[in-house]
Amino acid sequence: MTDLIAMGKAAKIAGRQLATLTTRQKNEALLAIADEIEAQSSVILAANAQDIDDGRSRGLSDSLLDRLLLTEKRVTGLAADTRKVVDLPDPVGKELESRLLPNGMRLSRRRIPVGVLGVIYEARPNVTIDVATLSLKAGNASILRGGSETLRSNLALVTVIQTALRDVGLPQTAVQYIDNPDRELVSQLLRLDEYVDMLIPRGGAGLHKLCREQSSIPVITGGIGICHIFVDESADLDRAVDIVENSKVQRPSVCNALDTVLVHPAIAQDFLPKMALRLAKSGVELRASSEALDILNKLQHEAKVVAAGPGDFDQEWLSLILGVRLVANVDEAIAHIQKHTTEHTESILTNDWHNATKFVNALSSSAIFVNASTRFNDGGQFGLGAEVAVSTQKLHARGPMGLEELTTYKWIGYGDGHIRP
Amino acid sequence: MTDLIAMGKAAKIAGRQLATLTTRQKNEALLAIADEIEAQSSVILAANAQDIDDGRSRGLSDSLLDRLLLTEKRVTGLAADTRKVVDLPDPVGKELESRLLPNGMRLSRRRIPVGVLGVIYEARPNVTIDVATLSLKAGNASILRGGSETLRSNLALVTVIQTALRDVGLPQTAVQYIDNPDRELVSQLLRLDEYVDMLIPRGGAGLHKLCREQSSIPVITGGIGICHIFVDESADLDRAVDIVENSKVQRPSVCNALDTVLVHPAIAQDFLPKMALRLAKSGVELRASSEALDILNKLQHEAKVVAAGPGDFDQEWLSLILGVRLVANVDEAIAHIQKHTTEHTESILTNDWHNATKFVNALSSSAIFVNASTRFNDGGQFGLGAEVAVSTQKLHARGPMGLEELTTYKWIGYGDGHIRP
Repeated sequence: MTDLIAMGKAAKIAGRQLATLTTRQKNEALLAIADEIEAQSSVILAANAQDIDDGRSRGLSDSLLDRLLLTEKRVTGLAADTRKVVDLPDPVGKELESRLLPNGMRLSRRRIPVGVLGVIYEARPNVTIDVATLSLKAGNASILRGGSETLRSNLALVTVIQTALRDVGLPQTAVQYIDNPDRELVSQLLRLDEYVDMLIPRGGAGLHKLCREQSSIPVITGGIGICHIFVDESADLDRAVDIVENSKVQRPSVCNALDTVLVHPAIAQDFLPKMALRLAKSGVELRASSEALDILNKLQHEAKVVAAGPGDFDQEWLSLILGVRLVANVDEAIAHIQKHTTEHTESILTNDWHNATKFVNALSSSAIFVNASTRFNDGGQFGLGAEVAVSTQKLHARGPMGLEELTTYKWIGYGDGHIRP
Repeated sequence: MTDLIAMGKAAKIAGRQLATLTTRQKNEALLAIADEIEAQSSVILAANAQDIDDGRSRGLSDSLLDRLLLTEKRVTGLAADTRKVVDLPDPVGKELESRLLPNGMRLSRRRIPVGVLGVIYEARPNVTIDVATLSLKAGNASILRGGSETLRSNLALVTVIQTALRDVGLPQTAVQYIDNPDRELVSQLLRLDEYVDMLIPRGGAGLHKLCREQSSIPVITGGIGICHIFVDESADLDRAVDIVENSKVQRPSVCNALDTVLVHPAIAQDFLPKMALRLAKSGVELRASSEALDILNKLQHEAKVVAAGPGDFDQEWLSLILGVRLVANVDEAIAHIQKHTTEHTESILTNDWHNATKFVNALSSSAIFVNASTRFNDGGQFGLGAEVAVSTQKLHARGPMGLEELTTYKWIGYGDGHIRP
């Protein structure tokens, strides 16, 4: 039987030890993990092959099976990713500020690890390595719970990690995995606030809702993006087509992919057909508001266009579908976005200084772009080196979460007999 | 009937307006509130007098009644406090970082308001003014829920605030108050995650637990301090007595007051009697572990000393009681603290570099002091200018929360036709 309280206690103790490690010690552990991944490649692949077999007989789609699949090349990639984490700067120990108070006490604020992370995720087994290695680099212990489709792969990977930890003299409980597929254990994990400091769900809207509603641990919500582009009257239309295409088509299944394009009426007659013809090449289906539909219908059968139904502007499509609507001006675009957004990513395409400024100032989404693709809201693109999640909440971290966002801080007051008057 | 959803919607709209105000506009509103507090002094005092009358007939203690009481001087103080908020720097709009990405896009991270704060508090009516004015300065709307003991005072103060907001042309819904004392409304507020971005409970451990367990809104937990001092072998004993006295006695009812003193055996014979005699002057009762008791009992009736009972080292005393225990060395002190702390405030009194370093590095409480009173863990003392709460959680903010901690940030990418390769 899985004893989550015992796992939590062990994680807390391991976390205290990790918090005092030097960067060199943490990097040694990461390099040992990378080596062990390569050494155990055949074991990992065998476990994954069983997962894939099971998935195929359970009727999982080919595209999902491809996401779950590990190949020799992908395993080598896992080791390479781990070595990249070695190269990332250690966020722990940085003095965020330091000053002398008027009473002569020196006060500093120092970055420290969060402690214990709980991570609930679905699908791809590389998340196991990503999350475990980034947690370790930031000095945190982690308790992982992956999807049942890759249970064997995940267990093989966690064994690899724990072996490497043991080999470098670190506690194996620094990375633990909940191997019992019973959903009740997720509920238990959500109440483990005595031991787990931060909960990171990585999955669909349902998982985020469950965590927000049931967790007594602070949750990082995010990863759900109803993303908008507003094509303003003054936009360069050719570039606008490129940006909309890139935002929608480059990787439609991810959270920063475009969901709704809002178009200024003055350029709709020119822009919409150009856009529709370009998107048609990638097989994008358009869900158009009535005014947009009037324009797009003139294209006849060159593009897939249907009338937008109720709720179509509240969809994170995650597929080759795009909502299209005309809005009178930037104010109406902002109003539409405020009504429908999940505060993930929005972009305005314009050559108008006033409208760009208004758009940037009025919206509070985690990332707002001017004349750029929504696909840039990403830890790698922002130069964070890695990404654990994309947060759309207002507390702690917003947008791509890198290593720094897996830390907190403490205040330190260096006195010399100071008492408060 | 109180319609919390309507309040939430109105707050969200007001918050969007507040987010775009200039510092000057926010300061005008704050000055109008200060003026209105003074103009309505008699109305506020009359409402408070009714609360006090009711409280007296309901048998509230004199000390509690004194905390609830407003006097002409205290009302003047509320206006003065509000004017102080005008002088605080506006945290909103600051660029936390700004750089050119390799692809030529300029990326910046800009501080913005959180949006809507929910604040649940008990007792003193000045919290109403504190929280409302600090929220406004940080560009946030707020929904307040105070204790029933000061309902009339709070309503009078909120009316004052709303009148001032209206007079300067701002939405009165920027500061709203839940005037229905039904506890069910607290439960409803805790589920208002669609409209409220951050929940700040200010009250006892029960309130914090309720919020952590039931809220679907991110909660700032904190304000509960089981605070420790470790008096090491090398401590200057006279200064140590001063620091322990200051930590325990200066204001025993607050969260950064000392709860447990841990003493190195080598100096216990000297230190404990000195400390006990000093604390006896303020009427402090000592709850001593058996070894400490052996030493302290020799003082006979000069100090109030009793044997520590089970659980006495897990108490936030909030009164003139102090736990006393001997620990073998700094490692045992750290272990005791890790077992019993709420991660609020700890201090080591020592002249030993190695031990001070170890203590500071090993513990992860929100504030750790060397040779200083625990009472310094405070927004005012840290120079933050104001304090909304003291957080002991790991996410978002730790320790004293000033204006900056009432903000979040957004990423802004200024492109010029950028698409992701």
